[in-house]
Amino acid sequence: MQLIDGNAIAATLVAELKARVAALPGRKPCLALVRVGEDPASVSYVRKKEKTAAEIGIESRVILPPVSISQAELEKLIDDLNADPAVDGILVQSPLPKNLDEPAAFRRIAAHKDVDGFHTLNLGKLVQEDDSGFVACTPAGIMELLARSGVDLKGKHVVVLGRSLIVGKPAALLALQKKAGANGTVTICHSGTADVAALTRLADVLIAAIGKPEFVKADMVKPGAVVIDVGINRVPDPSKKTGYKLVGDVDFDGVAPLASQITPVPGGVGPMTVCMLMRNTLKARLSAG
Amino acid sequence: MQLIDGNAIAATLVAELKARVAALPGRKPCLALVRVGEDPASVSYVRKKEKTAAEIGIESRVILPPVSISQAELEKLIDDLNADPAVDGILVQSPLPKNLDEPAAFRRIAAHKDVDGFHTLNLGKLVQEDDSGFVACTPAGIMELLARSGVDLKGKHVVVLGRSLIVGKPAALLALQKKAGANGTVTICHSGTADVAALTRLADVLIAAIGKPEFVKADMVKPGAVVIDVGINRVPDPSKKTGYKLVGDVDFDGVAPLASQITPVPGGVGPMTVCMLMRNTLKARLSAG
Repeated sequence: MQLIDGNAIAATLVAELKARVAALPGRKPCLALVRVGEDPASVSYVRKKEKTAAEIGIESRVILPPVSISQAELEKLIDDLNADPAVDGILVQSPLPKNLDEPAAFRRIAAHKDVDGFHTLNLGKLVQEDDSGFVACTPAGIMELLARSGVDLKGKHVVVLGRSLIVGKPAALLALQKKAGANGTVTICHSGTADVAALTRLADVLIAAIGKPEFVKADMVKPGAVVIDVGINRVPDPSKKTGYKLVGDVDFDGVAPLASQITPVPGGVGPMTVCMLMRNTLKARLSAG
Repeated sequence: MQLIDGNAIAATLVAELKARVAALPGRKPCLALVRVGEDPASVSYVRKKEKTAAEIGIESRVILPPVSISQAELEKLIDDLNADPAVDGILVQSPLPKNLDEPAAFRRIAAHKDVDGFHTLNLGKLVQEDDSGFVACTPAGIMELLARSGVDLKGKHVVVLGRSLIVGKPAALLALQKKAGANGTVTICHSGTADVAALTRLADVLIAAIGKPEFVKADMVKPGAVVIDVGINRVPDPSKKTGYKLVGDVDFDGVAPLASQITPVPGGVGPMTVCMLMRNTLKARLSAG
């Protein structure tokens, strides 16, 4: 079994992006990060994005509207960022306070600045295999992890657990594309699937993004499979100072001995996501000219 | 084995649409049909669309630019139709003459008049399960055939053969949606799939859209499966006056005895496609207000 080290691959990618940004003539790419309120996870995510941007040489503009901001004011703020030629990418950190309409806010971001890849047009381009769009960061990170671990999906059966808009569906659509590295045969399982284990056992590459702690057990995995664990679940752990530990959607200890390659949680898919956001921001800068 | 009679289901649907259009206050829905050149198949398709529109009470406006039309002139024509409040839906008949850029022409059609469902935004909405968009006619017709044949995809394994933009991918995305009638577990196979038969044999519902005459043989089908044949292939047949006969992607004679339900070719999916175009045109009219 070989561990897919997301931290190491992300570090390589950061170095590559840094070199590309350094070589860029003219202004540096600029990412606007909008965070409303003080949700602790959001504070930490935005800080991480700022830090990675700085490391690469991407300018970040952190905007912290008060929790009292109205939907109209938030949309006005997004409109202004859309219109600002000095801003390449816009990210509105999820979750927004419950009184705000998050899907409407996301829809407001112009497709060509939608570095999160959530815009309807960018999803449509993914279906059309049109590379001019932005792909959501987590599925893009999965493809990058696979490519840099020498896993070519051609002729492989890829089973995706989960059909979310931000992971499962785009990951399935990426794996299916008729492109080098992809071209996989794809099965998508979800909460309504009758016999999940019968299908996951067919997977040459298993992508677990179902949000259930340690859902994938050893008897659900074919020996020699590549296992990508997208889950980040908090489970109680009294031995920790925080009172919890992070586990994935895969029972790592049980599955790892069977897998040819596997991502750990944390330190697998997670570190790639921020890198892909930075790559999308650089792409937006290059498209903006 | 029960035959899924596409002609009969289409006739029911035409009657329903006719009643809905008759009950519509104000102007009737209007579909612009743009056909460039005299490709015999295109002539026949456009005539069929005109005829079905007339039967339902949908106005059709057939526009026949000369083959000498330039790309710029064609796009100007589409722009004018986009801007015309009396036109609800626009269809540019494929294939266009080779000197014209067909994808660019399709892209030019405004998303809210794109009754063919090919626009990037409409594909994105399909991914997002946003019903405000238009779904491509053939996959929409497949879902309608299944629904009207009492086939609920919930808990079923749907195997789609083919990943085209106009059938395979949208059919897979529809079958996957978390909606009544859908909610299937979906596998997409294609030219790069290693062992197609092993996967098709798992299908509770098999959708064949791979464009290979009689590709699906009896030993590729699980007894009791529902088989939807989207293929329309011409194969030589000296016994016919035309010199050819139409066959599907399924070896009907071999597979039919095994299937619980199956569509014939012709007379299965084919007749539904034009109905769905008309349903999309009515939807466009209702959205236009």
